Amino acid sequence: MRGAWARVRAPGLEDDIAVEEPLEIRVDGRPLAVTMRTPGHDEELALGFLFGEGLIEEARAAGPPADLAANTVEVAGPLLREPDARSFFTSSSCGVCGKGALEQVAVHAPAVVPGGVRIARALLAALPDRLRQPGFARTGGLHATGLFTEAGELLVAREDVGRHNAMDKVVGHALRAQAVPLSHNVLCVSGRLSFELVQKAAVAGAPVLVGVGAPTSLAVRLAADRGLTLAGFARNGRVNVYSGTERVV
Amino acid sequence: MRGAWARVRAPGLEDDIAVEEPLEIRVDGRPLAVTMRTPGHDEELALGFLFGEGLIEEARAAGPPADLAANTVEVAGPLLREPDARSFFTSSSCGVCGKGALEQVAVHAPAVVPGGVRIARALLAALPDRLRQPGFARTGGLHATGLFTEAGELLVAREDVGRHNAMDKVVGHALRAQAVPLSHNVLCVSGRLSFELVQKAAVAGAPVLVGVGAPTSLAVRLAADRGLTLAGFARNGRVNVYSGTERVV
Repeated sequence: MRGAWARVRAPGLEDDIAVEEPLEIRVDGRPLAVTMRTPGHDEELALGFLFGEGLIEEARAAGPPADLAANTVEVAGPLLREPDARSFFTSSSCGVCGKGALEQVAVHAPAVVPGGVRIARALLAALPDRLRQPGFARTGGLHATGLFTEAGELLVAREDVGRHNAMDKVVGHALRAQAVPLSHNVLCVSGRLSFELVQKAAVAGAPVLVGVGAPTSLAVRLAADRGLTLAGFARNGRVNVYSGTERVV
Repeated sequence: MRGAWARVRAPGLEDDIAVEEPLEIRVDGRPLAVTMRTPGHDEELALGFLFGEGLIEEARAAGPPADLAANTVEVAGPLLREPDARSFFTSSSCGVCGKGALEQVAVHAPAVVPGGVRIARALLAALPDRLRQPGFARTGGLHATGLFTEAGELLVAREDVGRHNAMDKVVGHALRAQAVPLSHNVLCVSGRLSFELVQKAAVAGAPVLVGVGAPTSLAVRLAADRGLTLAGFARNGRVNVYSGTERVV
């Protein structure tokens, strides 16, 4: 996680803090989106983001741009569709009209394949303890996402100041490993469960998403609608399962 | 906080969770931005958001739209300037070019007036304990922002699933009370301290921002650059002051 934290000094204080910097994502040289992120695994972040937006369906070449602009990652096009301006709001917001909230914001998330994973409740509750978080341990300022097998083996973990970025990095990593859809995996996040995280998990085809924190109402509705198992408050050996309880044994 | 939480039931589970729904902000009938938020104080949210973006400089008429569309708030125009598409990325992201990250993302944040507040370290550390969080107590899924006097009196507190929304609501409330700039106040947040929250505090003219959680590198840099006192990890009687230490006695 080189570059993920930095030492700060002030009178009476010396502390390691999480690095936050903007990243511009370009496709074929065209600036497409900017996100505030923690440096590291930028190519994974870009691929995972574009996949989550429904703009690519598999890994692409990704790396520094030809002009070597700092904090920029270049992804090879073309995109599956022309992104409209609205599409970039989905991380914290998105287009609405007269329909229900769920229909508005969940355009890209297909239903998850039934089954795929069966996991013991005790193992589900213990997954956050298996999530490697070296940056959080040092700074207290990073979110994490981990990709697990249904047996509870950690395949990859990523940290970021943005919880959605940590998820995008994991999905981008899986795309490069040709492991998407994640039909037999469990995604685990270190914090709360927003609508946005459920959407990203559903787009990636993960049947189970578990978090240390609380879910939101729209997260539970989307998970139920898409057939995804959503579990929260996974701590101290306990876990609440809000949807898709048939996968938890 | 009616509408801020909802009861969910699943096999073996009954729980109150935080409500998350999209809110469309319109100005003179034109859709301008959408944010995922917890319902309640939507007019404050819209005003605080537009103020933080540099699009308005005082409170405006705000309320349900003429067509009474759900999850929509209508604000009276005109705006101070024509918002370009990039301006809406600022909540989670923003435009970048060849300049440094700070110059890119901090276009709207002026320097805070020197002085304004002197606060004892012990009081600063104790402010989170004075932050009313009924929604968090019930759901574990809401962030909070509070506006305090330098004597530690809570003036207003707001909760939301989005930490930036809670801040926008407090600033919007202050705008309506003609209390902006917040030159003699302290802002306190329940979570981590991102660049975005420092920017909103700086635009509102608050000299001190304290949080329960960790700051990011860009948050500390922006606070130092704008002359704002930034303090984190305010818990258990302790607090780390990262910038503007002269205001903490």
